Amino acid sequence: MTPPTITLTTDFGLQDHYVGTMKGVILSRCPDARILDITHNIPPFSLCAGAYAVAQAAPFFPAGTIHVVVVDPGVGTARKALLVEFQQQFFIAPDNGVLSLLLSHDAAFTAREITNRELWLPNPSNTFHGRDIFAPSAAYLASGSVRPQDVGPLFDRIECLPDLEPIETEPGVWRGKILSIDHFGNVITNFRRPAGAFSLRIGPHHIRDFRETFGGATSELLFAYQGSSGYLELARNRRSAAQALDASPGDAVALHLRDTIG
Amino acid sequence: MTPPTITLTTDFGLQDHYVGTMKGVILSRCPDARILDITHNIPPFSLCAGAYAVAQAAPFFPAGTIHVVVVDPGVGTARKALLVEFQQQFFIAPDNGVLSLLLSHDAAFTAREITNRELWLPNPSNTFHGRDIFAPSAAYLASGSVRPQDVGPLFDRIECLPDLEPIETEPGVWRGKILSIDHFGNVITNFRRPAGAFSLRIGPHHIRDFRETFGGATSELLFAYQGSSGYLELARNRRSAAQALDASPGDAVALHLRDTIG
Amino acid sequence: MTPPTITLTTDFGLQDHYVGTMKGVILSRCPDARILDITHNIPPFSLCAGAYAVAQAAPFFPAGTIHVVVVDPGVGTARKALLVEFQQQFFIAPDNGVLSLLLSHDAAFTAREITNRELWLPNPSNTFHGRDIFAPSAAYLASGSVRPQDVGPLFDRIECLPDLEPIETEPGVWRGKILSIDHFGNVITNFRRPAGAFSLRIGPHHIRDFRETFGGATSELLFAYQGSSGYLELARNRRSAAQALDASPGDAVALHLRDTIG
Repeated sequence: MTPPTITLTTDFGLQDHYVGTMKGVILSRCPDARILDITHNIPPFSLCAGAYAVAQAAPFFPAGTIHVVVVDPGVGTARKALLVEFQQQFFIAPDNGVLSLLLSHDAAFTAREITNRELWLPNPSNTFHGRDIFAPSAAYLASGSVRPQDVGPLFDRIECLPDLEPIETEPGVWRGKILSIDHFGNVITNFRRPAGAFSLRIGPHHIRDFRETFGGATSELLFAYQGSSGYLELARNRRSAAQALDASPGDAVALHLRDTIG
Repeated sequence: MTPPTITLTTDFGLQDHYVGTMKGVILSRCPDARILDITHNIPPFSLCAGAYAVAQAAPFFPAGTIHVVVVDPGVGTARKALLVEFQQQFFIAPDNGVLSLLLSHDAAFTAREITNRELWLPNPSNTFHGRDIFAPSAAYLASGSVRPQDVGPLFDRIECLPDLEPIETEPGVWRGKILSIDHFGNVITNFRRPAGAFSLRIGPHHIRDFRETFGGATSELLFAYQGSSGYLELARNRRSAAQALDASPGDAVALHLRDTIG
Repeated sequence: MTPPTITLTTDFGLQDHYVGTMKGVILSRCPDARILDITHNIPPFSLCAGAYAVAQAAPFFPAGTIHVVVVDPGVGTARKALLVEFQQQFFIAPDNGVLSLLLSHDAAFTAREITNRELWLPNPSNTFHGRDIFAPSAAYLASGSVRPQDVGPLFDRIECLPDLEPIETEPGVWRGKILSIDHFGNVITNFRRPAGAFSLRIGPHHIRDFRETFGGATSELLFAYQGSSGYLELARNRRSAAQALDASPGDAVALHLRDTIG
């Protein structure tokens, strides 16, 4: 039988014991769990980058996967702990918007608040709910000893991040944002590729070039391309576009449909 | 049946083949081992940070887990290789103090020197005992083909790091040290929370605020809190306390019990 | 039964969803696969460092292991996707030389081009073949549903990196290169240790000291040693040799056999 799969996405970094400790908590409660890391290097407290990572990775995992997502600037405050069922997978996360890109498109999902303290570690800390609440809840769910309806009551208004979808500010001009900067310095926007010609503006930069692949572009050229993310991305060939653009996650970017520019 | 679990804690970093190679060595000798990383980003040669990481993570793992801990500034010298049994788990490490925080509290443990060269790779290198001695020893133990008593002779005086426990230097004043700085810049001390009021001093800084949670604190405020580690930690809300304090692992920190200050 | 093992070696870094997404693709096609990371921090686009990492790690893995190696500056261009069988293991990689250190020594191997589009994800992107081509091909092979001969046609001239082997430029003087700089700042050359006395030159630096171990060397001393890699490496005790030498992967290094110097 296939072992239950739990993925971890956090901003805990990889230098401390935090991630390893969560894995110990899981194995102690679900000995045959298979634990996979999505990433632990979400920029600290960046809900936007966390939302992007889980929305990108989850669709490629098999049904039944349990995704634990802990980017949690409000740890220890009154924000809820969530269990969400969506497209035959499970998501355990703080209720702070970190799932809102995954669930953004008229998504049919079921959300519960994790209130069943029997799932938590005794005397949970105020600062490490990944260890004390999220990991053990995921483990009990993975083990089959707890069913989704056992974790707590349904509720239907989960937190959403603002401005995840582009907004048309004037005819043919859309205001969007940078969702993430990747390891190579590629800049991921929240724009889908329009049917016709377009250009992108970030601060003083105006990007008019579109390329299908990186090959052949000079390393100086800033260009847009259809990213593997499904979004328009900005790049230079083998160099950082983010550096050239001085761009950060959350920054504004505008898309101009060319045929509407006078 | 639950597969045998081996965890890895090293200062090898994640850019090289070293960690992957250790995993290959393990799987070649124990094909059904489950290998989990605690961390490989212990600051190079920092026995203190390594001791802290393993002491924090290990208690959350199930009985029978084998922890391999390789922070080993003396690799290739005469320091022993250890197998320690403690609280139904196993620890394989150089005998250089890296287990001394785990074993510090009147701990009942059994230590053996790994002298059985049949467990080692042939012609072990002088610089990569993680691959050549520690990983294969762990794998043979995990596989059940070797019993603890087969690895080598018992001995009872393992190396200990100095000054892991606070010392009262004058009435109501304790001298401690910084065990670790985490990914968020939180500063982990080796003080337990006293029953009464207290303040902490690091260099020119005097920290008098204590908070139960991070929420609500301004990002400028330096405060102490009861860490998930069980120790007093120092933080700022969403900013690095370590940077504000110019603090590093091993630095001195003093705790003053307020009601004893004249 | 032992689960099929797939290792991953990439330059994708650990901050994005990329590695996690590849793991999801694999598990969706081979639910019992065991996935292990060699490293994802190969310097971006460094074929030399990627070639070094896989050549070092692979020999320690058991027969049947499938190694996926994605350092792929030419992604989206016409370069082939490879399946190589070598020493009872499998290697899936772009045909750009990243396997050439592994296969360099008169190696008997079988190479196929992965042309069977049924193994690919539908509508593969131009920028993320790790997800769209390499990971699913590895998963189908691991699952046993696809045999090596099903992936595509044999071919016999795979790409090789230049200058991986030292060249004798004048009697007793060899020109080599730096293969990799490790996490500790140790400098790995492509020289094997000569039988007699030798010295090494990198830029203005002339290294005449050879040590068997690090212990006892001052932290200032630059010395050569027989690395765990099988190559001559350059180090300082607990300090970065790379920094002292201002050395980078690919840089030239010369070996002088002393008894031939006039």
